[in-house]
Amino acid sequence: MARVLTPRAEDFPRWYQDVVAKAELADNGPVRGTMVIRPAGYAIWERMQAEMDDRIKAAGAQNAYFPLFIPEAYLKREADHVEGFSPELAVVTHAGGKQLAEPVVVRPTSETVIGEFMAKWIASHRDLPLLLNQWANVVRWELRPRVFLRTSEFLWQEGHTAHATEADARDYARRILHEAYEDFMVNVLAMPVVCGRKTARERFAGATNTLTLEAMMGDGKALQMGTSHELGQNFARAFDITYAAVDGALTHAWTTSWGTSTRMVGGLIMCHGDDNGLRVPPRLAPVQAYVMVVKAGEGVLEAAAKLRDELRGAGVRVALDDRVETAFGRRAVDAELKGYPVRVEVGPRDLAAGNAVLVRRRDGSKTPTPLDSVVTAVQSALEADHRGLYDEALAMREERTTDVSTLDEAIEAAATGWARLPWSAVGDQGEARANQAAVTVRGLVRPDGSVPDAGDEPDLRAILSRAY
Amino acid sequence: MARVLTPRAEDFPRWYQDVVAKAELADNGPVRGTMVIRPAGYAIWERMQAEMDDRIKAAGAQNAYFPLFIPEAYLKREADHVEGFSPELAVVTHAGGKQLAEPVVVRPTSETVIGEFMAKWIASHRDLPLLLNQWANVVRWELRPRVFLRTSEFLWQEGHTAHATEADARDYARRILHEAYEDFMVNVLAMPVVCGRKTARERFAGATNTLTLEAMMGDGKALQMGTSHELGQNFARAFDITYAAVDGALTHAWTTSWGTSTRMVGGLIMCHGDDNGLRVPPRLAPVQAYVMVVKAGEGVLEAAAKLRDELRGAGVRVALDDRVETAFGRRAVDAELKGYPVRVEVGPRDLAAGNAVLVRRRDGSKTPTPLDSVVTAVQSALEADHRGLYDEALAMREERTTDVSTLDEAIEAAATGWARLPWSAVGDQGEARANQAAVTVRGLVRPDGSVPDAGDEPDLRAILSRAY
Repeated sequence: MARVLTPRAEDFPRWYQDVVAKAELADNGPVRGTMVIRPAGYAIWERMQAEMDDRIKAAGAQNAYFPLFIPEAYLKREADHVEGFSPELAVVTHAGGKQLAEPVVVRPTSETVIGEFMAKWIASHRDLPLLLNQWANVVRWELRPRVFLRTSEFLWQEGHTAHATEADARDYARRILHEAYEDFMVNVLAMPVVCGRKTARERFAGATNTLTLEAMMGDGKALQMGTSHELGQNFARAFDITYAAVDGALTHAWTTSWGTSTRMVGGLIMCHGDDNGLRVPPRLAPVQAYVMVVKAGEGVLEAAAKLRDELRGAGVRVALDDRVETAFGRRAVDAELKGYPVRVEVGPRDLAAGNAVLVRRRDGSKTPTPLDSVVTAVQSALEADHRGLYDEALAMREERTTDVSTLDEAIEAAATGWARLPWSAVGDQGEARANQAAVTVRGLVRPDGSVPDAGDEPDLRAILSRAY
Repeated sequence: MARVLTPRAEDFPRWYQDVVAKAELADNGPVRGTMVIRPAGYAIWERMQAEMDDRIKAAGAQNAYFPLFIPEAYLKREADHVEGFSPELAVVTHAGGKQLAEPVVVRPTSETVIGEFMAKWIASHRDLPLLLNQWANVVRWELRPRVFLRTSEFLWQEGHTAHATEADARDYARRILHEAYEDFMVNVLAMPVVCGRKTARERFAGATNTLTLEAMMGDGKALQMGTSHELGQNFARAFDITYAAVDGALTHAWTTSWGTSTRMVGGLIMCHGDDNGLRVPPRLAPVQAYVMVVKAGEGVLEAAAKLRDELRGAGVRVALDDRVETAFGRRAVDAELKGYPVRVEVGPRDLAAGNAVLVRRRDGSKTPTPLDSVVTAVQSALEADHRGLYDEALAMREERTTDVSTLDEAIEAAATGWARLPWSAVGDQGEARANQAAVTVRGLVRPDGSVPDAGDEPDLRAILSRAY
């Protein structure tokens, strides 16, 4: 069989590009750094949206929509924020056939414009917490774009909340981190993630504390899958978000923001993909079971359609491939590439024996299965392969994470995976030196793996690695 | 009771603004013409998206996402298109801290960039039809913005399809018009719409034929709720979208595009709203039943929570208002404003008699209802009030539509409603004259009410009115 993809071991970035192109997930857009998300890629994003949206709403946040265009002056009100984002801004100077009196920026994130409206909507402690989320596109001009991972325009959700106290804000930032993001990544994407705290150097521009979820990709690098920020009173002061406390005193609110993006699609590809293509985790998969007619024959199409209907009836997301005019081998390779969790192959020979063949994408196993057992077999395979993908990814991460004690050892270990060492052995100076070697501190964690609070603690561990 | 809203008869545009503000649907954004869609407004849009998305997918289209930024040169490739959109474009001239070599426009619509990719993806007749849709924001600079109805940035879906033949394209444009759009508007929004064909003057820039759905608002004006365009081979030629036919001949495809937007939220408000506020049609409503605790009392909260749970269990979208610290009258006025289709009021007095009071937003009727009949009573009310709102809107439209025979009569009738007359009595000259009187031809229909094909027919009727 002709080689469809560059093997991962030979050239991982090229393998990634091959998968994105051949599984028809995305294309580069005409304007530098933009992307076209094709139907197969967008279906993955839509499922991510649906699962995340449920969790975000369960955490009490409501969706809203704020404008794409933000007055330049807004960005400038929070000093760290404007400094962090200025180099990446896209600026509209002309509109409606005229030069604008004040240029407007295309939102790189919406803390500022949402801050302006929080200030309008919040008057009393009874208006708090105010818990908002939006699904939107944002623009951050990229010099080294890579589809899904780093694009000038990307799709995301950004949550923005205001609270009466610092403790409320801190708790909510953690609630989103764990109940929305970690739960989704672990239980839907089948991706183990390390939850940690960013160092001051890696913190979001304008935040007092940034929490992160980091996943290991197939080449041992890290990908930041999402972040949740405590913004202190920085934006509340800049936009005058105040509330009358119970005693009547006018007080600045405490705000948070948190986001995940189409970058997760890239993370899913690079975490679970293998040399045959994508492996879409079963609970996420837009198509969980792909019923294939191997070739035409007495009753074959009917049997395949019946299985499709039975699977659908049992709540399995299913598609039927009856394109018998195309060679089966070619269609099977394509199904591997696209990563459907389970294939159900229906051909004349197996059908004569009352069977279909169940092919699991995770391990490639092929099992002849009596027609009346297909539905339960598919359901069991989907559940087992969710767990299997998670365990595989976790085993890889553990195998490629090295406990070390010095920065030099950490930088060396980061050539092939993650290094873990006491943060006291790194420090600000060490972090700067690691950065020069293209190694970053992905996050700080407590020895028991839990997320530290703001303010350093003597026994924190740092995870260092190369990253996307 | 203090007047909450300007009465419609006194000042309809002001009533509209009052409803938008007081039902907390939207605010004006800081950049001219942009809007902030607040949670109550966005929940309506999300329900519209969900219902429309189902119908669009049932019609075979797949969702995808194309970039926000389009090279200026793309727009220029189709002469009518660039002429139509140039005055409304927002242009990014600077990004990443530098002036761009080629300015990029913020998409006003995506025919051009999608055309470019259709050309890449389509090779053979086997690749057709290609049926795509995207949910996105678009920007058309507005000089006279009005929230939801006419904003510089709005949210919409835009479908784009390519077909092998003109007949296939024509049929698909009609299929979307009727099966996706009309079905949604009638059966979910409870809004009667007239499906018609636009005149050449009102046609989409670059289309060979534009089909439209027009609804009458509470002041007798028309609102275009959606459009579906046959684009002929205009974009296929401009972007070289060709396919190898069965006989191998390279042929230009035939394309369509179709869209509906957040403007429908404005349409819903102005079609169904009354002097007490919004009336959200039951099948759309994010909250269908609003269970209100009238005031605290023995077992009241428990009974209300139980009704909430029973309604939810029966598949009714429900919310519970137990804010007894706020005066009931104020909350009831607010519930009217927000237009929940049914309120279920639970107070100590009614509860003592084993009842809750069911209040229907459509007609204001209040019916004491035994607790164990509430679920079925709510379900019946929702179904009946969908029909009731539709019938009301249809009756208004019929009452305010006048059959006339001359253009002068039509212009006069358009002062208060719609005029219907033979298109032969209007013509291009008459249309220009009507436009000077701020009256437009909303659509051409056949005498039997069906949608005409491209190419004039002698017996078409024209509907003329003022419009949003």
